Amino acid sequence: MKNIYITRRETFNAAHKLRREDWSDEKNELVFGKCANKNWHGHNFELFVTVKGVPSVDTGFVINLKELGEIIKKSVIEKIDHKNINLDVDFMKGKMSSTENLAIGIWKEIEHEIVKMGGELVKIKLFETENNFVEYFGGKEPY
Amino acid sequence: MKNIYITRRETFNAAHKLRREDWSDEKNELVFGKCANKNWHGHNFELFVTVKGVPSVDTGFVINLKELGEIIKKSVIEKIDHKNINLDVDFMKGKMSSTENLAIGIWKEIEHEIVKMGGELVKIKLFETENNFVEYFGGKEPY
Amino acid sequence: MKNIYITRRETFNAAHKLRREDWSDEKNELVFGKCANKNWHGHNFELFVTVKGVPSVDTGFVINLKELGEIIKKSVIEKIDHKNINLDVDFMKGKMSSTENLAIGIWKEIEHEIVKMGGELVKIKLFETENNFVEYFGGKEPY
Amino acid sequence: MKNIYITRRETFNAAHKLRREDWSDEKNELVFGKCANKNWHGHNFELFVTVKGVPSVDTGFVINLKELGEIIKKSVIEKIDHKNINLDVDFMKGKMSSTENLAIGIWKEIEHEIVKMGGELVKIKLFETENNFVEYFGGKEPY
Amino acid sequence: MKNIYITRRETFNAAHKLRREDWSDEKNELVFGKCANKNWHGHNFELFVTVKGVPSVDTGFVINLKELGEIIKKSVIEKIDHKNINLDVDFMKGKMSSTENLAIGIWKEIEHEIVKMGGELVKIKLFETENNFVEYFGGKEPY
Amino acid sequence: MKNIYITRRETFNAAHKLRREDWSDEKNELVFGKCANKNWHGHNFELFVTVKGVPSVDTGFVINLKELGEIIKKSVIEKIDHKNINLDVDFMKGKMSSTENLAIGIWKEIEHEIVKMGGELVKIKLFETENNFVEYFGGKEPY
Repeated sequence: MKNIYITRRETFNAAHKLRREDWSDEKNELVFGKCANKNWHGHNFELFVTVKGVPSVDTGFVINLKELGEIIKKSVIEKIDHKNINLDVDFMKGKMSSTENLAIGIWKEIEHEIVKMGGELVKIKLFETENNFVEYFGGKEPY
Repeated sequence: MKNIYITRRETFNAAHKLRREDWSDEKNELVFGKCANKNWHGHNFELFVTVKGVPSVDTGFVINLKELGEIIKKSVIEKIDHKNINLDVDFMKGKMSSTENLAIGIWKEIEHEIVKMGGELVKIKLFETENNFVEYFGGKEPY
Repeated sequence: MKNIYITRRETFNAAHKLRREDWSDEKNELVFGKCANKNWHGHNFELFVTVKGVPSVDTGFVINLKELGEIIKKSVIEKIDHKNINLDVDFMKGKMSSTENLAIGIWKEIEHEIVKMGGELVKIKLFETENNFVEYFGGKEPY
Repeated sequence: MKNIYITRRETFNAAHKLRREDWSDEKNELVFGKCANKNWHGHNFELFVTVKGVPSVDTGFVINLKELGEIIKKSVIEKIDHKNINLDVDFMKGKMSSTENLAIGIWKEIEHEIVKMGGELVKIKLFETENNFVEYFGGKEPY
Repeated sequence: MKNIYITRRETFNAAHKLRREDWSDEKNELVFGKCANKNWHGHNFELFVTVKGVPSVDTGFVINLKELGEIIKKSVIEKIDHKNINLDVDFMKGKMSSTENLAIGIWKEIEHEIVKMGGELVKIKLFETENNFVEYFGGKEPY
Repeated sequence: MKNIYITRRETFNAAHKLRREDWSDEKNELVFGKCANKNWHGHNFELFVTVKGVPSVDTGFVINLKELGEIIKKSVIEKIDHKNINLDVDFMKGKMSSTENLAIGIWKEIEHEIVKMGGELVKIKLFETENNFVEYFGGKEPY
């Protein structure tokens, strides 16, 4: 049977900053530019979660998208939407809140839940702005 | 010589429902939610067809996109645009009209036509809404 | 005090057809083209509801957008999302389901609810596809 | 001579919260919902600035868009991009940082600069998210 | 009876430059910047044509959008798509090819045709890029 | 350590034509259609550059996106924005200016610069219009 890849989009709005307190203001400015602003800035993030599988003969579904949406909301959106990524989000504690690290963190929050519903997570795609996004495949083959 | 992947977007508007007549109303509602509505609903679908190949030295083209567009229109769009996927579309007869099955059905309709024009079909990407899409690679390696 | 205009977007997916049973197939086809297909087709509609007012000093809000979103969902989206506009939607009974008539129908469903929350409805904008949309101002001055 | 309306889009990313310190947590939560989060959240704002005028015979321009872009950047974007609207932005001090108030604040920052370059500001349109936006006409007739 | 405003989007791709041969290179560069490049540059233009009227009781239409699309294609798109605005387009001869002048030129090409089909043209909206657009109302009240 | 893929979007506007002077007008028209227009046409191109790597523990970055943006602007955008691809762009001299060849040319201009900043280029994605785009992986495995 042949695999198909299905993707669900969800969005969240959050504050963050890219700044190391063990670095001087100058070094923070040099490396992180405007993202180092002490008083935070924020984004409308767009999150795409992709699951791979073979469609069921009964339903035509790889996965039930309504359930997948609920899992994304419970595992990710409720923890991060209208929050401060550096201060409020458990799974980002102690990490730089780059888009890269955020995508990796989201993978870890959601992978186990998707396995429980019988799916296989294969990609997290995360837009920080219309000009910047990352893709993470959890160490599996990219696609 | 190195491969390049070229994609053409086309759109169509169609009605469908996700409902099994051999299931009770309750089970249909439970599994398919609002998509089970007896009287149909519909979508503006966005279809992306990707072909792989080496650009011709004479034209710079992997494939002539005008011809590819005509093939997509003839093989897919004319059969499904402003139609009912469950009732009007031959290649979906007897199947659940999920986005997954629709993408697989479109692949089968169009692959042979693309081979005839000297191309290699490598991906069908199909958006049902801005929040939901599937990708199908015909059992080949995804990319 | 100066007015500001605030807009909320909501989306719904519905089936419909443009067809008069008192006309011949030929006349239906001539006037409505593919939209006359007996077995329905459908769209992802995008609805923009605009309310005018002066921002509150306490909140900075013309209107509470969370409440406005709930009103749109209750007055419009629940009645039409994943439905058949011709068969399932009370406020469209006996009317041609053109985008024009749908926008006018939505205005009538929602205006009273917005007045009750202290707002003034000034525009309904409704996209049927990325290429077609209508704007309705309820007979007031357009803006 | 007939007027034409020309619009320039710029974007900025900022943090904010909607919260009154003279209100209880419960009241803040009730009125502002998730936007009241103490630790901030943020958005990718999209700003559209519209200027009205008659095209010059020499240039075909109502206004030089390169200059308009520079004015928007200097008067607005540099003051707010990658900033905290409540803490870092002079022209928002002491005001609720709703999209409504932000649009009014931007109008005041930029109107005088546009007059100096010979233009007439007629609209500020500001998107907070893809679902929410406001339009402000400075008390002039809307269009 | 109450008016409704209906809009059709069409797109075209064209080359142009903003350059006066009676000006020095320096002055052209100063005023038009990169747009003055002697060897042309180009854009994907997006054109929105808005017509106002009262929906027909028989059809629910203000205007038949299929016919409106055909008129836009015949009156505008065929004359300008994949063309050079300065060299190939009759209605732009002797004018600066600014977005402003192009919108005015399009209005003149299409207004008469829309009157002939019983409609009233009320707006031409023309995007040169995602960041720049103009709106022209033909000297009527803007809306 | 696990790889992550990070992408930066930049845009440019350019003129070109698809036409062989060693072919008759008829053959050019037959093969290239409207793209063969002697006097050029043009597009708003959207360019996505993807780099692969492991996020730094110190910064959370695979690559500094500000630096990547500067490299794309210096290596590609300055050479092609508001230019004629056939006449003005060194790296396209003597080649058909198809989207395919343009993506390959951009890869060659930018790969060395990305290696110098410690990154690995893995994809160039280039949109000519909203309906047409190509992806190039430099002969590496696609992803």
